[in-house]
Amino acid sequence: MNKQNVPDVIVSRLPVYLRALQRLSDAGVTTTSSQELGEKVGISAAQIRKDLSQFGEFGKQGTGYHIPFLIERLSQILNVDRIWDVGVVGMGDIGHAIVRYNGFSNRGFQVAMCFDADPAKIGTKVGEFEIRDEKNLIADIKAASIKIAMICVPASVAQDVADKLVEAGVRGILNYAPLKLIVPANVRVQHIDPAIGLQRITYYIA
Amino acid sequence: MNKQNVPDVIVSRLPVYLRALQRLSDAGVTTTSSQELGEKVGISAAQIRKDLSQFGEFGKQGTGYHIPFLIERLSQILNVDRIWDVGVVGMGDIGHAIVRYNGFSNRGFQVAMCFDADPAKIGTKVGEFEIRDEKNLIADIKAASIKIAMICVPASVAQDVADKLVEAGVRGILNYAPLKLIVPANVRVQHIDPAIGLQRITYYIA
Repeated sequence: MNKQNVPDVIVSRLPVYLRALQRLSDAGVTTTSSQELGEKVGISAAQIRKDLSQFGEFGKQGTGYHIPFLIERLSQILNVDRIWDVGVVGMGDIGHAIVRYNGFSNRGFQVAMCFDADPAKIGTKVGEFEIRDEKNLIADIKAASIKIAMICVPASVAQDVADKLVEAGVRGILNYAPLKLIVPANVRVQHIDPAIGLQRITYYIA
Repeated sequence: MNKQNVPDVIVSRLPVYLRALQRLSDAGVTTTSSQELGEKVGISAAQIRKDLSQFGEFGKQGTGYHIPFLIERLSQILNVDRIWDVGVVGMGDIGHAIVRYNGFSNRGFQVAMCFDADPAKIGTKVGEFEIRDEKNLIADIKAASIKIAMICVPASVAQDVADKLVEAGVRGILNYAPLKLIVPANVRVQHIDPAIGLQRITYYIA
């Protein structure tokens, strides 16, 4: 398997498969088929088999997939068979929501520190985290070797924050600000954009 | 063109093209090519041409795409050549962020009303909106003919809210709660799941 050659569109579906498999596992189910998995995620069984075949042989003809094994392998492929510390920048509504979010557990991520530029917020606590001064962003992220960050600041300052995160050694950014970030080729950005999700809905409901 | 026959994976890319085209347009650019658009969105030029060809002929050989025309057509195809009123349920951190979000303008959506079940929140204002009592959710959504809603309540009550929205006539739901909603086949759900975005990042940055 050479991960570099796998089309990103396939990569984009792997987390969806993993989430569905974890839900089946949580429900006590131990085996599944590409048909059943396909119904859960709204993707054809043939596509699922084709996608997974990029990474090896996961199921046996007639017996389907052993869920714990497939979860283990997908977690390895997605590099979430470990816990990534995440830095959150911008402690407005979204930043608060993320620090308190309970959807990360068991999926490879935990918030490790959070930042804001507002003197009124710096030093106050959100859950167990004390909000750090954004002035120390580069030094603090570097010192903690944090490689993943979420940008929750206003669009007007998001690129500046992204530049600092890149300088601090961050390799992946989840961006909630409504703009496209410009980053070096070795840094990955995913954009959380509710309008994109809404437009995927309205296509179907004229 | 029969929209029912277009694979959802293609539909999922149209909002991404539209966003990139709107950014080019905002920058004063009036023509583009599948190559340039592809570089903006990280999708091959051939794939873009193939995707768009599902819906007709948009560009001329050698002269590329006329951006205002392509924006107009994609907006029609995605049914965002109008403004959809959106109901927001759950006025915690995420609900507040959405009501204040400035990334919807010119993209087909506007928040029309918001709800919470907490008596301490009901009747208070967020921006221009007074938080409504979730008890009146079905009646208020129906009365306003709202077809699109965002669920921002805790996972434990999200399915109950979804059931009520469906009863009220909602046809599309953007779900921020960390669980899979069960809805009738004629209702579309998109799930905003930051862990999915993060896992698409970590695949590449072991």
